[in-house]
Amino acid sequence: MINPRAAALQYSQQNKPVFLSNLKQLLEIPSVSTDPDHIPDMEKAAQWVASELSAMNFSKVTIFPTAKHPVVYGERMDAGPLAPIVLVYGHYDVQPADPLELWKTGPFTPEQRGDNLFARGASDMKGQVVATLSAIHSILAGGPLPVNIKYVVEGEEEIGSPNLGKFLREHKDLLACSFALNPDSGMIGADVPTIVYALRGLAYFELRVTGPSHDLHSGMFGGVVHNPAIVLADLISGMHNADGQITLPGFYDRVRALPEEERTALAALPMDDAYFLKITGAAQLWGESGYTAVERVGARPTLDVNGMLSGFTGDGSKTVIPAWAMAKISMRLVPDQDPVEVHQQLLSYLQQHAPQSVQWDLTVMAGGPACITDIHQPGTQALARGLESVWGKAPLFKREGGSIPVVGDMQTILGIDSVLTGFGLPDDNLHSPNEKLHLPTWYKGIDALIHFFYNLV
Amino acid sequence: MINPRAAALQYSQQNKPVFLSNLKQLLEIPSVSTDPDHIPDMEKAAQWVASELSAMNFSKVTIFPTAKHPVVYGERMDAGPLAPIVLVYGHYDVQPADPLELWKTGPFTPEQRGDNLFARGASDMKGQVVATLSAIHSILAGGPLPVNIKYVVEGEEEIGSPNLGKFLREHKDLLACSFALNPDSGMIGADVPTIVYALRGLAYFELRVTGPSHDLHSGMFGGVVHNPAIVLADLISGMHNADGQITLPGFYDRVRALPEEERTALAALPMDDAYFLKITGAAQLWGESGYTAVERVGARPTLDVNGMLSGFTGDGSKTVIPAWAMAKISMRLVPDQDPVEVHQQLLSYLQQHAPQSVQWDLTVMAGGPACITDIHQPGTQALARGLESVWGKAPLFKREGGSIPVVGDMQTILGIDSVLTGFGLPDDNLHSPNEKLHLPTWYKGIDALIHFFYNLV
Repeated sequence: MINPRAAALQYSQQNKPVFLSNLKQLLEIPSVSTDPDHIPDMEKAAQWVASELSAMNFSKVTIFPTAKHPVVYGERMDAGPLAPIVLVYGHYDVQPADPLELWKTGPFTPEQRGDNLFARGASDMKGQVVATLSAIHSILAGGPLPVNIKYVVEGEEEIGSPNLGKFLREHKDLLACSFALNPDSGMIGADVPTIVYALRGLAYFELRVTGPSHDLHSGMFGGVVHNPAIVLADLISGMHNADGQITLPGFYDRVRALPEEERTALAALPMDDAYFLKITGAAQLWGESGYTAVERVGARPTLDVNGMLSGFTGDGSKTVIPAWAMAKISMRLVPDQDPVEVHQQLLSYLQQHAPQSVQWDLTVMAGGPACITDIHQPGTQALARGLESVWGKAPLFKREGGSIPVVGDMQTILGIDSVLTGFGLPDDNLHSPNEKLHLPTWYKGIDALIHFFYNLV
Repeated sequence: MINPRAAALQYSQQNKPVFLSNLKQLLEIPSVSTDPDHIPDMEKAAQWVASELSAMNFSKVTIFPTAKHPVVYGERMDAGPLAPIVLVYGHYDVQPADPLELWKTGPFTPEQRGDNLFARGASDMKGQVVATLSAIHSILAGGPLPVNIKYVVEGEEEIGSPNLGKFLREHKDLLACSFALNPDSGMIGADVPTIVYALRGLAYFELRVTGPSHDLHSGMFGGVVHNPAIVLADLISGMHNADGQITLPGFYDRVRALPEEERTALAALPMDDAYFLKITGAAQLWGESGYTAVERVGARPTLDVNGMLSGFTGDGSKTVIPAWAMAKISMRLVPDQDPVEVHQQLLSYLQQHAPQSVQWDLTVMAGGPACITDIHQPGTQALARGLESVWGKAPLFKREGGSIPVVGDMQTILGIDSVLTGFGLPDDNLHSPNEKLHLPTWYKGIDALIHFFYNLV
């Protein structure tokens, strides 16, 4: 009789079509958390995850309602009180699919082309959720679970997890665990297994500038009122200086300096300018002077306009002075910036720079702090060995530019670190049309997760 | 037997409901020239005008096709070779009605509330077209026309009259005349009859800035690519300096200085800051320093953003770096600026200031020069006396901030001046939701036009 680990790996090898078919089921549910039209799909996706857990004999399987989208929970505690408890995190929600016309095939009709599976959420992160489910399923096929598992899947990650903090606080005892596994980050390349040890935070705002009480004829009134679209442009333009630094008062006060040692380690990552130029398709790179690209996305805060709207935007021409202009503006934060303080800094900037000729209104849309995790914790080391078993090389440790508010929330509320990994690739078009998942990497990821669970004991 | 003028005025007094009903018919046709979906409505509106001319026994009534929307023509030359020929101009097209949700009643279902008739085009300028038709109709009811009339109504004024120049050149002999009457401007107030002697020109562009090849995740790539919405904001912001002057190289080189005498006359107009604040609903006025509001809208060039679009603009939040950003940017020009030169100035500005990190593309949407007409010409004086007969006071002469490209075209191509008036009011919400026409003023305008035609001989 082969040992349980080998049996699980053999099961995983033989059941790839089953895992893929499961993933396609979940991808077909358009669970777009930001869009109220998709509330029934959110319920459906939550139900799908709960059914998977029940099918694997998880106990306490519950769909917890929140103020917006439900959290799915289930646990298998049969490894006994001496075995570690791993909280496996995931999110079943996805970003909106627009602009739809740029998708080659429907965002919610998953299609395999070559080695890739195309669909919204294939990589971020339904693929990763189904990877953890598949790894657990494989282990259970070969024998008992070596560790206890608490499985938590939320439906609000893509809108900043507004209700997860409350859920974590209210269910602190239920969620008590050794550490969390969060596979919502990704790999540097298909041959480069990666563990993320730092994440940026997020502060996301909507700024609306209002000028005249209604759209005006630009001939009759051009020259007497301040155009709100121009005022918005002035305000946005002033948020960076010529060196690409952000000008909000006090913005850099709490930014933790990057140690020389870490700069050296980051410089060794295979992510040079050519790499970023290829992935982004930009004519030239751009950013804060004095830092390399990999430092800028991982260890430095940034400010971006995510959307902008004013006046007449159809075909043709309309000679109006718009009554208002709107921009969605967000900052990626690094330790030890505080999203609440950043909100105050943005308010101060606007109070100082917005002219009296307009009115403005700032809405907080989402926010969460940055975080850094300890790479020496046993969970991280167990994953590192698991990745090495499958890829034949040690993983790289990197800082990730994205934000996963739940990691900070779990650190603050549950007092636990998160082990961050994932089997998506940089060209997966996350949040963009034609999102995809590289299936050979995904299958390897499932095996690495099997190793990870066994390596913990 | 009463004299023909008195008969015409009497007919006009008795037929107000007929005039109003005619106007409503025309307003019900949604002849939005910029929207290809409305091409059948453009034909319908042209046909409506042609039928009116035919019903008044105009000869040579023709709907001339152009590259886009047709021009309607008809003439009555029965006043003989010694009488002046007045070319009466109009346009049957209107601006788009959006944002539709801000209209109290449908833009194309005219509704009278109190003294006002609400509908898109009620003031600009279907009401003015029906005013000239009603005046001619009233005169014909009382006797022969005192002058010869050539009636020209185009369908492209709201998109910058792109094909009218060609039409004027091709039909120069047909259109030969003494001067033009153009009622496409308006009055300062219901008690202030007004003749416009100067118009601003227009140069309208669409600027598109392209950054990465696709929308990017703002976490993974925030800090390495130049955000096209921010670049667009920088470019727009740089187009004015702190004094509200436009920074395009050479922009003011050809701007004709305002004579002291004219500044004094403009200062006497009842259009102070309080007037503009009330009409626009702005918190404060704004504009080029060193000039009064009435000077800034009439005699100084301006630059406005008419629309702006980038990235995610729906409800909620989406953390993308947009692949592109677009703005509709237009300038109002004064004598002796040239729209073609302004295009070059904008290109120079963009070449100097757009960073290498993005690509950009500039499209010319519309353009026409400013113009000034001679207030001592007989046509203007005939109208001045007509307005005085009805309102009991001499009209004010003002510069108008809007653009009527046809006035410049007629000056250049046909060699004629235009007499500019109209019976719309500043709070008519031109180009805005809830456009309306003040009916008591409109009925008086019809009478003033009757006087005008008789005053010419």
